[in-house]
Amino acid sequence: MAILAVGSVALDTVRTPFGYEKEVLGGSATYFSIAASYFNSVGIVAVVGEDFPSAHVDFLASRGVDTSGLQREPGRTFRWIGEYGSDLNSAKTLDTQLNVFADFRPRLLPDQRNPDVLFLGNIDPALQRDVLEQVQRPRIVGCDTMNYWIGNTRESLLKTLEKVDVLLINDAETKELAGSSNLFRAARDILSWGPKTLVVKRGEYGVLMLTSDAVFGLPAYPVEDVSDPTGAGDSFAGGFMGYLSSAPQLDELAYRNAVVYGSVMASFNVCAFGPKRLASLTRADIDGRFEQFVRLTKFGSA
Amino acid sequence: MAILAVGSVALDTVRTPFGYEKEVLGGSATYFSIAASYFNSVGIVAVVGEDFPSAHVDFLASRGVDTSGLQREPGRTFRWIGEYGSDLNSAKTLDTQLNVFADFRPRLLPDQRNPDVLFLGNIDPALQRDVLEQVQRPRIVGCDTMNYWIGNTRESLLKTLEKVDVLLINDAETKELAGSSNLFRAARDILSWGPKTLVVKRGEYGVLMLTSDAVFGLPAYPVEDVSDPTGAGDSFAGGFMGYLSSAPQLDELAYRNAVVYGSVMASFNVCAFGPKRLASLTRADIDGRFEQFVRLTKFGSA
Repeated sequence: MAILAVGSVALDTVRTPFGYEKEVLGGSATYFSIAASYFNSVGIVAVVGEDFPSAHVDFLASRGVDTSGLQREPGRTFRWIGEYGSDLNSAKTLDTQLNVFADFRPRLLPDQRNPDVLFLGNIDPALQRDVLEQVQRPRIVGCDTMNYWIGNTRESLLKTLEKVDVLLINDAETKELAGSSNLFRAARDILSWGPKTLVVKRGEYGVLMLTSDAVFGLPAYPVEDVSDPTGAGDSFAGGFMGYLSSAPQLDELAYRNAVVYGSVMASFNVCAFGPKRLASLTRADIDGRFEQFVRLTKFGSA
Repeated sequence: MAILAVGSVALDTVRTPFGYEKEVLGGSATYFSIAASYFNSVGIVAVVGEDFPSAHVDFLASRGVDTSGLQREPGRTFRWIGEYGSDLNSAKTLDTQLNVFADFRPRLLPDQRNPDVLFLGNIDPALQRDVLEQVQRPRIVGCDTMNYWIGNTRESLLKTLEKVDVLLINDAETKELAGSSNLFRAARDILSWGPKTLVVKRGEYGVLMLTSDAVFGLPAYPVEDVSDPTGAGDSFAGGFMGYLSSAPQLDELAYRNAVVYGSVMASFNVCAFGPKRLASLTRADIDGRFEQFVRLTKFGSA
C-alpha cells in the first residue's frame, strides 16, 4: 500500500449544539484513512476490542481502506465522550475509556513495512518511534501529537520529531511545544528539531504551513453548517498526506496544494456527525471544492 | 480632499511585553489617516484639548494629512491607558479619560462636505449619522464600531448601518451584532441591514471579506516582532479605504486588493509603538509587502 496510518479506532459519543450521536465510528486512523483513500491506497494499524461492530470494518473496507492491520484484542474498544459548545472550536472531554487502546502495541504486518507515506497519529511518542523502527524509511513521515504528550513525554516526543518530515499540530500545541508565545518564533525552533515542514491547524481560522524558507497561509473554507468538528484534524492530515503521496513531485507547490486538499477534506467532514459525509464524496466534490478555495483566496492582477 | 476620516485623536499610554510608552500619538483618525495618506489626499475631523502637543499636528501634516478639521477645545485631550498580555491579541483597558472627546460634535468645514470616500471611525452611531447628514453622498462610506455601541445603542447603530457601504469590525463584534455564533450566518444578517460589504478583522488570523455573493479570505502577514498592536484595525481601514479611493474601478478584485493593502499597513504598524513605523514607509515598502502577500498565499497550478 502507498499510505500507512497508525493511530486510534474508537467509538465516539458526541454532543454539539446541532445534535447528539452515540458510539459513532471515530478515531484518528479512521478519519485519516477515509480522507486519504480518495488519493491513494491506504492501510491502517490500530486496535479494537471484541465489541467492535463488524459493520464498521465493512464500512472502512467499502472506502478501500485496508483493514488487515486492525488488531482485535480481548476487551472493549476505546471510547471517547465529548461535547462542543456553541463556538465549536474546542471539545470538552467528558470521559475517555482507553480500554484495549491502553495496551496498544503497533505490530506491522510484513506487507506494511515499506509504505511510501507513513502517518503517525496521535499516540505515545515511544510507540511512534517503535513503528518507525518497523518500516524501511518512507519517502514522507507525517506526525501528529497533542498537549498530553508535549507536557508529559517531552523528551520522548523530541526524539520522535528527529525522524519526522512533517509535523501537523494546532496553534496552542505549537506554542506549548516550543515554549514561545509567538507562533513564528515557535515554528523556527520546531523546524530546527527535525521536521522540515510544520503544519499549524487553526480550526475556523485555517492553516499555516512553515518551512525554513517559506510560509503559506490558507483561510478555512466558509462552512455555514458545522455539525460536528470531531475528526477535522485527522481528515485534514488524510487529505494532506494522501495528496502528497499522489503528487508528481514534492516541491513547495505540491505541499501547498496538499494543504488545500487537506482543508477540502476537513471542510466536508465537519458537516456531519462521524465520518458519514467524508466517506460519501466523489472526486468531483473534492476538485470542485479545491476550485472554490482558488476563488476564496484570489486577489492581485485580474 | 479624496478621503475624509472622522474619529478620535488621542494620547495613548501602552504597555506590552516588549515595552512601555507614555502618551504617544494615537486614536482612530490618526492611524487611519496616516495609512490612507500613502494612497490619496486625506483629511480628518476630530477633537483635541489645549494640552495637545503641536508637534503631533506637525507630524500628521508631514504625512500630508489635512488637519484643518482638527478642533481644539478647552480642556484635556482624550487619553487611553492599556496593556497587552503575551498573546497580544486583546488589549486590557486600564483607564479611559474621554476629556474633550466626551463632547465631540463633528462639524465639517465647507471643503470637507464632498469627500469621495468617508470613514466613520468608532464613535457614537448618532454622531456617525450626524456626519453623514453634513456631506453629499460619498462614493464609498466605511464604518467601524465596537461592542460598547452594539450593546448600548443598538437601534441607533442599525440606523447608521442602513447608510453604510462597508462595515469593518472584528469577529466577536460580528457575532454579537447579529446575535449568532456562526460567523457566516451572522454576516448574512448584517449584509441584509445595509452594508454591501462586511470586512471581518481577525487579528493574527487575518481577514474575511463577505458580500452577498462572495467570500474572500486572507491570512495575516507573519510578523515575528509585534511590538504594539494598538491601531492595527484603523491602519487596516486606512489602507483599505485609501486603496479603494485610488482604484481605477470598484469591482470585487479591487475590494480584495484593498483587503491586502489594509493588511500590509496593519502589518507594518504593529512593529513599533504608536504610528512611528506606519508613518515612515515608502511606496516600495508597501508594494514589496503586497508581493509578499502574493507569495504567502499562492497555490494551485505552477
